[in-house]
Amino acid sequence: MITVALAKGALLKDSVTRFAKAGLDFSTVLEAGNRQLMVPSVCGRARALLVRNGDVPVYVAFGQAQLGVVGYDVLKEHQMPVAHLVDLSFGGCHMAVAVKANSGYARVTDLPPHCRIASKFTHCARSFFNELDLPVELVHLTGSVELGPITGMAEAIVDLVATGRTLRDNGLVEIHELFHSTARLVGNPLALRLDRGEIHSMVEAIRKQNQLISLKG
Amino acid sequence: MITVALAKGALLKDSVTRFAKAGLDFSTVLEAGNRQLMVPSVCGRARALLVRNGDVPVYVAFGQAQLGVVGYDVLKEHQMPVAHLVDLSFGGCHMAVAVKANSGYARVTDLPPHCRIASKFTHCARSFFNELDLPVELVHLTGSVELGPITGMAEAIVDLVATGRTLRDNGLVEIHELFHSTARLVGNPLALRLDRGEIHSMVEAIRKQNQLISLKG
Repeated sequence: MITVALAKGALLKDSVTRFAKAGLDFSTVLEAGNRQLMVPSVCGRARALLVRNGDVPVYVAFGQAQLGVVGYDVLKEHQMPVAHLVDLSFGGCHMAVAVKANSGYARVTDLPPHCRIASKFTHCARSFFNELDLPVELVHLTGSVELGPITGMAEAIVDLVATGRTLRDNGLVEIHELFHSTARLVGNPLALRLDRGEIHSMVEAIRKQNQLISLKG
Repeated sequence: MITVALAKGALLKDSVTRFAKAGLDFSTVLEAGNRQLMVPSVCGRARALLVRNGDVPVYVAFGQAQLGVVGYDVLKEHQMPVAHLVDLSFGGCHMAVAVKANSGYARVTDLPPHCRIASKFTHCARSFFNELDLPVELVHLTGSVELGPITGMAEAIVDLVATGRTLRDNGLVEIHELFHSTARLVGNPLALRLDRGEIHSMVEAIRKQNQLISLKG
């Protein structure tokens, strides 16, 4: 039986659609009032684990799920040993450095050395500022990162930007893009090597659907 | 102006009540549809920062908030340099080790060495198993920790238990209590030392209210 780890939240609906097109119907997870965390597919051949974004690579890396769908941002932040299989193209957003609109900082090199940067993605932020050779103090927050510059705790933030509305609403502007992120199909490396065809045919079906969608787009 | 960091979620309502009794009315944060993260008190003498549980000690430690209300579990997990001022007695719950009801483990010493433990509180779990001299592999999850034993990824979990309903619903039983947790009033150490009376009188008002409530209880 294939187990698929799906991220709750923004990516869930599109993830379910892609698996449905490839022959696995997990639409029960989208039903309002569903409280189950482990949901069998309609055909009974597979099941979905409904977990938090950051936990998808964990369940896949430990082999409790053979496949998973998660944002590239999470993969880059957590660096778990999973195989990146297909770029699913949906859930597009980017990781960016943002500052207060009236801060006077127009690019990252304007930021003062040893300034504070608030982020949920401290690993990504650390690599970025290391490459830039700009020493900064990172403050790890778990939510509402935009409060960092507003309260004066941090000069800048490193955060995911989709529409840019949260930044605008909080008087922040983006000054640098670190990388673009989309949803990815990932797999457990050992499960892929030991697979007798079941997982590979699923991955191939999703890859084909994905090529068709990109051609249409 | 006093800034108070309040945790969103289960502790918010009681936190607002306690500050109201001590003379600071933050009831706007409880209004349905409030999207503001920084809310002034009705009198205008103070403001509340509405942040995630784990971020309260961060805002207090960095001095962006002079006071904060947060669960003892979060303080124990994150070990930020904040002053513990008052045990507010509400929000009672405890940190516990739980296993599958049919696992056969009746106490923590029954757990096999090098077994996997899933938790959101990996720091607390690490100290506990270190003291017990039981080597374990900790798996950090960000939510729905009960899936760990259900999927077979972990033999046990370390998690907060309030009513015990989540454990029961998932076929898990508690086998050990690590510590009891309640909401705490915390303060920024430097702000407390430099205070000209404003913060101390607020802390004293809350402490008195708290004593009255405990006497009644």
